[in-house]
Amino acid sequence: MSMNLNAQWIVGFVDGEGCFHVGINQNESMKLGVQVLPEFTVVQHEVDAQVLYALKDYFGCGVVRQNHGTRLSYRVRGQENLRDRIIPFFEKHQFKTRKRVDFAKFRKVILLIEKGEHLTADGLEKIRQIKISMNSTTFLR
Amino acid sequence: MSMNLNAQWIVGFVDGEGCFHVGINQNESMKLGVQVLPEFTVVQHEVDAQVLYALKDYFGCGVVRQNHGTRLSYRVRGQENLRDRIIPFFEKHQFKTRKRVDFAKFRKVILLIEKGEHLTADGLEKIRQIKISMNSTTFLR
Repeated sequence: MSMNLNAQWIVGFVDGEGCFHVGINQNESMKLGVQVLPEFTVVQHEVDAQVLYALKDYFGCGVVRQNHGTRLSYRVRGQENLRDRIIPFFEKHQFKTRKRVDFAKFRKVILLIEKGEHLTADGLEKIRQIKISMNSTTFLR
Repeated sequence: MSMNLNAQWIVGFVDGEGCFHVGINQNESMKLGVQVLPEFTVVQHEVDAQVLYALKDYFGCGVVRQNHGTRLSYRVRGQENLRDRIIPFFEKHQFKTRKRVDFAKFRKVILLIEKGEHLTADGLEKIRQIKISMNSTTFLR
């Protein structure tokens, strides 16, 4: 993969195309019966697969996989990847759009998980409230 | 407007959110009965109006106006603006996605117009064929 990405290009691209999402899924094996699943994704038409693989190379984590139909997504899950690679990058290189608000909320969720708060009823409720307030303008598009 | 944009951020953002479009509209006052109307647009939710105004500032041309509902668009029309400001910028700072293919076609149309070919039947047919081949992956999204 010979495509070299510039940090500012990545911020601009993710400002437009990226998504910070917090899943809260039923999972009976977890203490509270639910699993908190934060993820960072970038979706593109399959003609632009190369860009998604270049992001994967750049961040050194995540997977590229089929999304819907002819679309592919670059997806990063996992507390370590998000905490050590994704969060620090976007702390250093700040968003220009309202994406910065979603990123700040996503970052807060990662910090709550880091402190183990997702394993307490109070912490889980905090995360739920943050999740509800996220990506509101995305839905309006 | 205090938002300073970096050239690479702009390329990344436009790679995701920009559109190069060639309109061919009926206009009886034109020699061939049609007007060729190339335009460069970036559409955002109104919460990100500031980014669109920052692009307008950066390029020193174009307008920000209401699009549909809660969306705004930054739009550049006019041969001089496109030829002297938009085309040179994206020649210098190259796209990473398939947007580069649409940009190359759009650039070709601007060059044909510059030579006055849109005023000949042959030239207009060339432009029509280029237009038909553009933005094909956008429709697939």
